[in-house]
Amino acid sequence: MYTAETQIRVRYAETDQMGYVYYGHYAMYYEVGRVEALRQLGFSYRELEEMGIMMPVLDSKIRYLKPARYDELLTIKVIIPVMPAVKMNFTYEITNEKGELINQGETTLAFINMENGRPRRLPDVMKKIFEPWFSK
Amino acid sequence: MYTAETQIRVRYAETDQMGYVYYGHYAMYYEVGRVEALRQLGFSYRELEEMGIMMPVLDSKIRYLKPARYDELLTIKVIIPVMPAVKMNFTYEITNEKGELINQGETTLAFINMENGRPRRLPDVMKKIFEPWFSK
Amino acid sequence: MYTAETQIRVRYAETDQMGYVYYGHYAMYYEVGRVEALRQLGFSYRELEEMGIMMPVLDSKIRYLKPARYDELLTIKVIIPVMPAVKMNFTYEITNEKGELINQGETTLAFINMENGRPRRLPDVMKKIFEPWFSK
Amino acid sequence: MYTAETQIRVRYAETDQMGYVYYGHYAMYYEVGRVEALRQLGFSYRELEEMGIMMPVLDSKIRYLKPARYDELLTIKVIIPVMPAVKMNFTYEITNEKGELINQGETTLAFINMENGRPRRLPDVMKKIFEPWFSK
Repeated sequence: MYTAETQIRVRYAETDQMGYVYYGHYAMYYEVGRVEALRQLGFSYRELEEMGIMMPVLDSKIRYLKPARYDELLTIKVIIPVMPAVKMNFTYEITNEKGELINQGETTLAFINMENGRPRRLPDVMKKIFEPWFSK
Repeated sequence: MYTAETQIRVRYAETDQMGYVYYGHYAMYYEVGRVEALRQLGFSYRELEEMGIMMPVLDSKIRYLKPARYDELLTIKVIIPVMPAVKMNFTYEITNEKGELINQGETTLAFINMENGRPRRLPDVMKKIFEPWFSK
Repeated sequence: MYTAETQIRVRYAETDQMGYVYYGHYAMYYEVGRVEALRQLGFSYRELEEMGIMMPVLDSKIRYLKPARYDELLTIKVIIPVMPAVKMNFTYEITNEKGELINQGETTLAFINMENGRPRRLPDVMKKIFEPWFSK
Repeated sequence: MYTAETQIRVRYAETDQMGYVYYGHYAMYYEVGRVEALRQLGFSYRELEEMGIMMPVLDSKIRYLKPARYDELLTIKVIIPVMPAVKMNFTYEITNEKGELINQGETTLAFINMENGRPRRLPDVMKKIFEPWFSK
């Protein structure tokens, strides 16, 4: 298991007329959390794409527990529960400044060769980085 | 059961550098589908909020089956499978111009009194509109 | 001069906590207006990119005269004031359901060869479509 | 004159299929820059709204000089050139990681009483914070 935390400040653009963060923006918060989790491991998603591999999202589940509000500093906890292979799972827990859990979710991503659109296993460079976190 | 269809054309703003619709925008497409489904029944979500009732999303599940691309005319099929009460379920099926199913999802929404933030049942005006679709 | 009109319904996602359309979304409304203006002339921006030409925006000016609100049906009037050559100008006027002018703007776009990133003149296929609108 | 700098990392959601930041997102980057400039002065835009004052944007001008790309760390320099009164001007300069100026812009904002929608002068609490920066 690997765990990482990132902070994000809610932008005015992300609120809606309910006065809350629009529900559609959590997927973007998850994306920021994923990318920063990889960066903290020394791996850049940008470089992955430069290697010709992309990671589209296959499915997502989100539970909206409490609203997030403008200018709040949210903490996004990203958990990689199992060693990635042809797919990669992420789970997410977002807490607000009071420490309240406001949002929970999970996503599955695939590794795809950009050239032919075919699924593939995670690249060796990622494998080496991840293995220490998932071996007993 | 009630079913409605809406069409949406993919905007340039909604693509990402993979050349696909960004995965976070499907929640917005669902929102447009929901609102148009209600409008086709003669009910306006705008009026609901003017009555002091809002409908935040409690949870969502999305399966991204195939990518959507810039300028495609997508068809969003919205299904209300059961008579709403304190919650309201929607399921979604998005097809592209070739008729391929590219995205499936579901959301649960609540009815909330804006004044006190408390859950409530659907308002009578909605109940009257929906009942004919769910009685045997 | 060429003029075209498109309608757009304000999405919930596009409002902010002031209860208005977020000021950053007008650029997207302009984009939708531009693309539909070209489509009404029988020209598709998608096909332009498939020909290896893209049209990045060089500059924009926007005046926010009145707020737009959720669910309003806005009319975007797009004007192409002069025959495009290496650049293409668009001006925009957005009116709400009451016919009030709520937003005015202008943008300059370039024609760029995707292959080498170099500016170029508009392609002949566009030239033929536009010329009748700009000859005396 | 008052000057402040903020950094922003380009999110995947903010790119488009050209592989650049979508032109419509710079207005949001400006907003983040403005809010952080105020915060560095000890003033919170959130508190301003809690005082019943909002600051809608009246006009914007943007020059898109070079593209910004995914994952780049951009620096947003915000300049408040003159002491605000009934309006407030901001100018913006965005540079990329190589120090290249990629975007320049300016916006005018108003102070509006939320209660009655009327323009007003900047509140005293802001005036006190700003004055030292604009006196000779």
